[in-house]
Amino acid sequence: MKCAAGIETRIVDESSINLDPIQAAGRLTPEAMKAVIAWGDGYSVCDHCHKPFRLDYVTNPPIADFHSDLSKWLGMDQSQVVPGARRAFQEVTGALVSKGEPVMMTGMGHYTAYLSVEVVNGVVREIPPTPDHHITADTAAERIEAVIREFGYAPKLLFIDAVDFMYGNFHDVKGVAKVAHQYDIPVLYNGVYTVGVLPVNGKDLGADFVVGSGHKSMAAPAPSGVLATTDEYADVVLRTTKISGDVTGRKFGIKQVGILGCSLMGAPIVGLIASFPAVKERVKHWDEEVANHRIVTDALLSIEGTKIASEFPRRHTLTRMDTSASFDVVARTHKKRGFFLSSALAKRGITGIMPGVTKQWKFNTYGLSREQVEYLAGAFVDIAEENGLRIA
Amino acid sequence: MKCAAGIETRIVDESSINLDPIQAAGRLTPEAMKAVIAWGDGYSVCDHCHKPFRLDYVTNPPIADFHSDLSKWLGMDQSQVVPGARRAFQEVTGALVSKGEPVMMTGMGHYTAYLSVEVVNGVVREIPPTPDHHITADTAAERIEAVIREFGYAPKLLFIDAVDFMYGNFHDVKGVAKVAHQYDIPVLYNGVYTVGVLPVNGKDLGADFVVGSGHKSMAAPAPSGVLATTDEYADVVLRTTKISGDVTGRKFGIKQVGILGCSLMGAPIVGLIASFPAVKERVKHWDEEVANHRIVTDALLSIEGTKIASEFPRRHTLTRMDTSASFDVVARTHKKRGFFLSSALAKRGITGIMPGVTKQWKFNTYGLSREQVEYLAGAFVDIAEENGLRIA
Repeated sequence: MKCAAGIETRIVDESSINLDPIQAAGRLTPEAMKAVIAWGDGYSVCDHCHKPFRLDYVTNPPIADFHSDLSKWLGMDQSQVVPGARRAFQEVTGALVSKGEPVMMTGMGHYTAYLSVEVVNGVVREIPPTPDHHITADTAAERIEAVIREFGYAPKLLFIDAVDFMYGNFHDVKGVAKVAHQYDIPVLYNGVYTVGVLPVNGKDLGADFVVGSGHKSMAAPAPSGVLATTDEYADVVLRTTKISGDVTGRKFGIKQVGILGCSLMGAPIVGLIASFPAVKERVKHWDEEVANHRIVTDALLSIEGTKIASEFPRRHTLTRMDTSASFDVVARTHKKRGFFLSSALAKRGITGIMPGVTKQWKFNTYGLSREQVEYLAGAFVDIAEENGLRIA
Repeated sequence: MKCAAGIETRIVDESSINLDPIQAAGRLTPEAMKAVIAWGDGYSVCDHCHKPFRLDYVTNPPIADFHSDLSKWLGMDQSQVVPGARRAFQEVTGALVSKGEPVMMTGMGHYTAYLSVEVVNGVVREIPPTPDHHITADTAAERIEAVIREFGYAPKLLFIDAVDFMYGNFHDVKGVAKVAHQYDIPVLYNGVYTVGVLPVNGKDLGADFVVGSGHKSMAAPAPSGVLATTDEYADVVLRTTKISGDVTGRKFGIKQVGILGCSLMGAPIVGLIASFPAVKERVKHWDEEVANHRIVTDALLSIEGTKIASEFPRRHTLTRMDTSASFDVVARTHKKRGFFLSSALAKRGITGIMPGVTKQWKFNTYGLSREQVEYLAGAFVDIAEENGLRIA
């Protein structure tokens, strides 16, 4: 079934239980889908753009209100929308990091965080994770000291993931931020797996920057994201243009340099705004999401040899499983090899796990109903039994 | 009528003839709208992402094929999709311009081009437009020489608009590029008002970079755009990551630094691809678009005192009118003042002209049918007559 020449109609989330780790909390709400249809044309949001001609001043659709609501909701002073979290990273490194200067990154950071340093020719220095895959304040302090010894000054910025993409583990943001601030290092809170799914208050956490992803965790179309900061850093990172034409004398009003003027038009911004009431509500029900998730991890743990590679008990809906002593044993003799698992899941209407992988694999149950997680839990157990694994 | 809490359902292009200069060629095709609905979730295009895990290698939807088709169609070697033309500008300045280095800009450039220099702390030096608002090769040569005298070396990059946003005038890209290349200055062809509406061949024009806008001229959702370049400059501007973790040793495969990895997911990229067959077809009918446009400009010129501020005869569908001796005379005594014009147009189902402005104003008829432009032409004459202006 094609929706346009050569393009299949995607029906993944209409037809399946989708466990894809990055897709779970980004699925559009019905409100966002309606907004995307109504505001799909790119410059749609410019219909009512008046002086001073900047996106975040537009009142129809209510982009201006969204910005102030967003700042308040994140416990920060000022906000900006960006075409993806990575563009927020780039905006911050672009403002704070010069060529050859060090940035503190955790060893569990997302590749886009590393690339946001590389793109400004900065240097990455890592805080190594503990053997159980956590970033701690003590290790952060040691590594900051090492950077000071190496460069003669403190890192220009510190990235910390609230919850990392590898294990879905929670890290000691507050403790790390406290250490960083002792050295006057600004802290960028990477909330792409928290903002939009659980309550986040940037100032309480000690964040100078809070970054969230619209398409990862705020039920918004891609590319979309948010950057919230303090008044102090807004002056630098959200600075307005100063450039002027040397011949024409042209100037460009209050356009923001770091984001190249207006940042996010059309479907992504209107979708983000349309989903926002549902998102604000859903973060209050994070406990239910985790409870649902545990129904599935409990079922998986009942399968002989199965372990959880992530921290335990689970506090997030994104988990890395270790089935090298269960499903992977099956894979060794199964005629479909490692693909038996994704294939058996597919037969049951379940998708989103990397096909062919049976040693360590990730899944995310965010947004599934109780009925769905119970079905899912049963499906994993069924597949295990079908393949001769014992259930505890 | 609301499509979500607090968000009106936009019906501008369903209900009106829309003359908005930036919106005309960005309206989604029916194919793009269907694709946006089917692929609206942000990470939808990641369903079938396999090694080497980069957007432009994805074959379902056909993103890989789109990239090679696009390069060929633009007469260039390699292409990338970007979240808006401004991000292509930034990617090029980020690769080629260091702090304090000069970039040649035309005095008619878009503000985002200026900001793309400011964001890398570069310096802008302008080629002034002629009194009739054109950028010429001679002036370019003079100004390049002036930069060499001032800085001791040639500008690092030269931006040239194929058609500028102020007047919709065509500029001597070929001539300017030839001059620039005599000084080994790479040339960025800003095709946001050409790529997607008329035939463009970058190599024939002497462009090292061709930038187009998806939401301005390729019937694609925002933010979207394209950057095409030569093999020579691809090595620099589309370079792949080299950074690695100092503790973990992590590396990030073939992700591209300038665009921070994967650039454009979900609705914008799939919409861009879905519209592409229609876009490739429509550029062959540019003459018809200009002929339609002239029906309207002829009607406007028949109104006593009315002039065209843009070059004449018109070669583009975006035109700046000068009605300071016609509609503006009416405005001086009309009870609605300058708003009489937009108001009279609105009564006739016509929108997109800046409300309240009657001296100089821009409009774009791209995509209107013959029937619509005839109606529009009649409407302008009607409004003039209604307000006591003579028709020649």
